[in-house]
Amino acid sequence: MTTAENEQNMTSQVNHVRHVLAVASGKGGVGKSLVSAMAAVELARRGLKVGIMDADLTGPSIPRLFGMTARPESSMVGIIPPETATGVKIISMNLFLDDAGQPVIWRGPLLTSAIKQFWSDVAWGDLDVLIVDLPPGTADVPLTAFQSLPVDGILMITTPQELASMIVEKAAGLAKQMHKPILGIVENMAMVTCPQCGEAFELFGPSHAEELADHIGAPVLARLPIDPTVAALADTGHVEDVKMAAFAPAAFAPVTEALAEYITTPSTVFAAPNPAPSPKAS
Amino acid sequence: MTTAENEQNMTSQVNHVRHVLAVASGKGGVGKSLVSAMAAVELARRGLKVGIMDADLTGPSIPRLFGMTARPESSMVGIIPPETATGVKIISMNLFLDDAGQPVIWRGPLLTSAIKQFWSDVAWGDLDVLIVDLPPGTADVPLTAFQSLPVDGILMITTPQELASMIVEKAAGLAKQMHKPILGIVENMAMVTCPQCGEAFELFGPSHAEELADHIGAPVLARLPIDPTVAALADTGHVEDVKMAAFAPAAFAPVTEALAEYITTPSTVFAAPNPAPSPKAS
Repeated sequence: MTTAENEQNMTSQVNHVRHVLAVASGKGGVGKSLVSAMAAVELARRGLKVGIMDADLTGPSIPRLFGMTARPESSMVGIIPPETATGVKIISMNLFLDDAGQPVIWRGPLLTSAIKQFWSDVAWGDLDVLIVDLPPGTADVPLTAFQSLPVDGILMITTPQELASMIVEKAAGLAKQMHKPILGIVENMAMVTCPQCGEAFELFGPSHAEELADHIGAPVLARLPIDPTVAALADTGHVEDVKMAAFAPAAFAPVTEALAEYITTPSTVFAAPNPAPSPKAS
Repeated sequence: MTTAENEQNMTSQVNHVRHVLAVASGKGGVGKSLVSAMAAVELARRGLKVGIMDADLTGPSIPRLFGMTARPESSMVGIIPPETATGVKIISMNLFLDDAGQPVIWRGPLLTSAIKQFWSDVAWGDLDVLIVDLPPGTADVPLTAFQSLPVDGILMITTPQELASMIVEKAAGLAKQMHKPILGIVENMAMVTCPQCGEAFELFGPSHAEELADHIGAPVLARLPIDPTVAALADTGHVEDVKMAAFAPAAFAPVTEALAEYITTPSTVFAAPNPAPSPKAS
């Protein structure tokens, strides 16, 4: 990657990104990347132009979900994001490493710089939505994403545990301080169906999604099961073959519908975010 | 908290910490905090003096697992870590917040400083082992923990997915660069038992723990189930009531045995870490 001024100018000439959606949680391991990927695929299937910026620089999951390993090429106008089979453009730290297991041992300033470059030095081109898959926590990367990228919507991912809700509230607190609207909540790992007897049960106990929704003032869009079939497809790079009712092909797929509405309705409040705050966070 | 020089001197007079065990993963949501807590409780039950430093500053889970909310008091010799019912001393960012859901929006330098203060300004007293529950990733906090604390053993937590293994390899790469020995691997969420029919199944697919063990050169100590009973106890602050065979009270509880051996055998390689490297990571 390079930060050469002329490249930045070149990308600004070719990049037209209408919405930037952050997929956040605060908590790790709740399925932010899986939801980012499934949402991107279904939005692309509806004819929207979609990119994913994998902002989890030290624990990037997006390339693995799509089975992508090719290193992005550079061009006169910037770094070219590789496209998945369904046409989703992808940028991830792991695409720049020789070995996917290689650690990226970076402190905050380098992480911050990389996020800015993933925005300014990548030739995203014409996008209806850029989905930013955030890392856990409320430190450098989420803070930089909210301060430096024109995020105009957030999808918040949680799991049923109260512990998860507590940490998701922290991420929602960050979003609130940054005046970024939360479009909705997706509760992942809500239930599982026994492959032997077909009985569904709540593996991590009863849902706390509605309480969380009350606290942070955003609707619960869906409660997703843990599905061993989905896990297997995601783990082998076939996330584009996953079928899950909240995304498609149900008559009403709540997550995809909500996101499509946010993307295609320029007059929603989400397309006109509040005036940029002057962040005081240190 | 204060960094006053005299307090640092005072804690250095009362603190005698024989081993520092980092519980790491790279990946979030794999159960680092649960394993840290269960290990601490069983080691304390064996008569060892144990503390937990919750180093996940932006997503702290430890107080919730133990049902602890009291703010640590300051004394002449430093901050006094509250003790759980089984006598485990605890320090966590959430114990210093008025509201557990309040976000800690800090960049790397502040996170780094807090970790150092959790070590130098806390009156840990006499400890056989301080367990450091690390956050996900390989950025500021894990890097600072490995550079600034005398970590002499690492427990690596993973889940069955290949995706998790890939990210755990990154954390193992960081440990290797820092010349810190990995004692073993715990694979969490390996299987689940249907409460209806009693059938056990591998929710996230077949294990990749042995492959990971080969890659990083450390043994698999245990494969833990997802148990709704454990989840419920952990989520309501009763982690000390959890029974899990890998920790206790089985005739041979592999995780507790391995840790007890590391703690009580001063002559093991783990008690005499390699010479400190000169870290070049930026």
